[in-house]
Amino acid sequence: MKIALDVMGGDFAPGTTVAGAILARQELPENIELVLIGDKGKIVDIANEKGFDPSSFEIIHTTEVIEMGEHPSKAFSQKQDSSIVKGFGLLKSGQVDAFASVGNTGAMMAGSMFIIKSIPGIIRPTISAAIPSLTGGSTLLLDVGINPDCRPDVLYQYGIIGSLYSKYIFNIETPRVGLLNIGAEEEKGNLLTKSTHDLMKGSNDFYFAGNIEGNDLFNNEKADVIVCDGFVGNVILKEAEAFYNMLKLKKVEGEFFERFNFVNYGGTPILGINKPVFIGHGISNAIAIKNMIVNSKVFIEAKLTEKFKEVFE
Amino acid sequence: MKIALDVMGGDFAPGTTVAGAILARQELPENIELVLIGDKGKIVDIANEKGFDPSSFEIIHTTEVIEMGEHPSKAFSQKQDSSIVKGFGLLKSGQVDAFASVGNTGAMMAGSMFIIKSIPGIIRPTISAAIPSLTGGSTLLLDVGINPDCRPDVLYQYGIIGSLYSKYIFNIETPRVGLLNIGAEEEKGNLLTKSTHDLMKGSNDFYFAGNIEGNDLFNNEKADVIVCDGFVGNVILKEAEAFYNMLKLKKVEGEFFERFNFVNYGGTPILGINKPVFIGHGISNAIAIKNMIVNSKVFIEAKLTEKFKEVFE
Repeated sequence: MKIALDVMGGDFAPGTTVAGAILARQELPENIELVLIGDKGKIVDIANEKGFDPSSFEIIHTTEVIEMGEHPSKAFSQKQDSSIVKGFGLLKSGQVDAFASVGNTGAMMAGSMFIIKSIPGIIRPTISAAIPSLTGGSTLLLDVGINPDCRPDVLYQYGIIGSLYSKYIFNIETPRVGLLNIGAEEEKGNLLTKSTHDLMKGSNDFYFAGNIEGNDLFNNEKADVIVCDGFVGNVILKEAEAFYNMLKLKKVEGEFFERFNFVNYGGTPILGINKPVFIGHGISNAIAIKNMIVNSKVFIEAKLTEKFKEVFE
Repeated sequence: MKIALDVMGGDFAPGTTVAGAILARQELPENIELVLIGDKGKIVDIANEKGFDPSSFEIIHTTEVIEMGEHPSKAFSQKQDSSIVKGFGLLKSGQVDAFASVGNTGAMMAGSMFIIKSIPGIIRPTISAAIPSLTGGSTLLLDVGINPDCRPDVLYQYGIIGSLYSKYIFNIETPRVGLLNIGAEEEKGNLLTKSTHDLMKGSNDFYFAGNIEGNDLFNNEKADVIVCDGFVGNVILKEAEAFYNMLKLKKVEGEFFERFNFVNYGGTPILGINKPVFIGHGISNAIAIKNMIVNSKVFIEAKLTEKFKEVFE
């Protein structure tokens, strides 16, 4: 198995990305090969500085970088020797099994949608977040930012996607899929959630657990998967970030609350495309980079892309 | 000035409501008359039990109650001798200056929309919430639940309404009005927020401060008023409730975090109707009831309804 990392992407690249790759190399078994894409000289220097043998990695040298602020599709078409474009080329041709980056999200989306492409039958690929639950586990929330305007059939598909993810990644036999809404009763909601509720309540594709309200986000009493549009999902995540920041400012400590520190999170797969692509926060630290690589391995092993293809094609 | 309270509404009525009215009576000057609407015998008994003279109140006896779970408009048309219907009658005829209840929200909305009616020019009345800010102040968030589907022109009006509220209730000379969105840049958002941004950026009716993201909800660095649709506003408030509950469970204390205990909040006015109506949580305690009555007084004194009429008519 080969996992490729864009070493040039992210606010602290290439220092943090190489450091994360070293941590992953130390943790992962030898049969998992790590392919680092970026400036070879810099990669070798950083590894040597850290007393780590750079030949533990396969290094693909590139000369260009798509910067964080660049226009995604323009940069993607112009910078053919950038780490992101190269990564998608390797993934597309089957030379690597997954591609991960904390670089320009728009460029990563462009590559995912135009090079790797959606799985036939999936209307809109999505990204999810595992939000901490009081019981110790997590609840999968999707979409969290790709699709700010969703149709009911798109949210319905997110129910299927979330259910498969929860089953094969979190090992929950029959995931309960909830619809984020503003009331527990069936008739509550906006036009989107009312129509989606109608679709979901007859579902044979997943177990529908009904409406979930905002005050039930952080316990998994009612659902293992919570579906919403990307606008609402983004607001939920950023509000959680605001709370974490308040806790820090007020000097509240604790293992549980540390789970809201999204800096440690290891990126998220783009769900519903033909091959595994992981994206992460530009501010990711080395541990987050390491986690993203490890998560890619878990994702490949779970054969989730193949499960999606079986169900949707 | 006369403020009427529905004594029969709420999960702990009439005990909590009468207790709240007694607290308000003790706090408010004598020229503010409190009118209690409900079962006279019970009101007198509760007051006497608490060693308080019931003749400090004007009591309007009613024989019916619209229960919390009842169908709002059906109950409203059938229970003519209920405390809620009576309250709206007194308000409509000018016998009281404000009507407040923590009872059936749907029935309170029905009375507001069909008896008191929208101020001409206002497309959709709204309710707001004052969310705690790290600096010690509050940020006004609206809509928080009445209108889960909003058009851009409705959100634009919420900018005007929120700005006037912030100016005349919070005494902020030039309130900064932000649009809740999923990115700082102008072109970010869903169809609704992109169109609304276009409308707001040309506004002469309020100071537009641009997009506000979820991670800026609890500081007022960028805005004094944050506008969103009622679906998103409801999710934001309930997520904040979830955080407060987690803090309690994890035994985190502190004055700042106690400001997230919405049980203490004193209801909220329905903004954009012809007379002052306050609604509150069914679970309100006596302090919340007292605060709701005091807030009604502040609202009447600020002549906010008249300001809305001047601007919109």
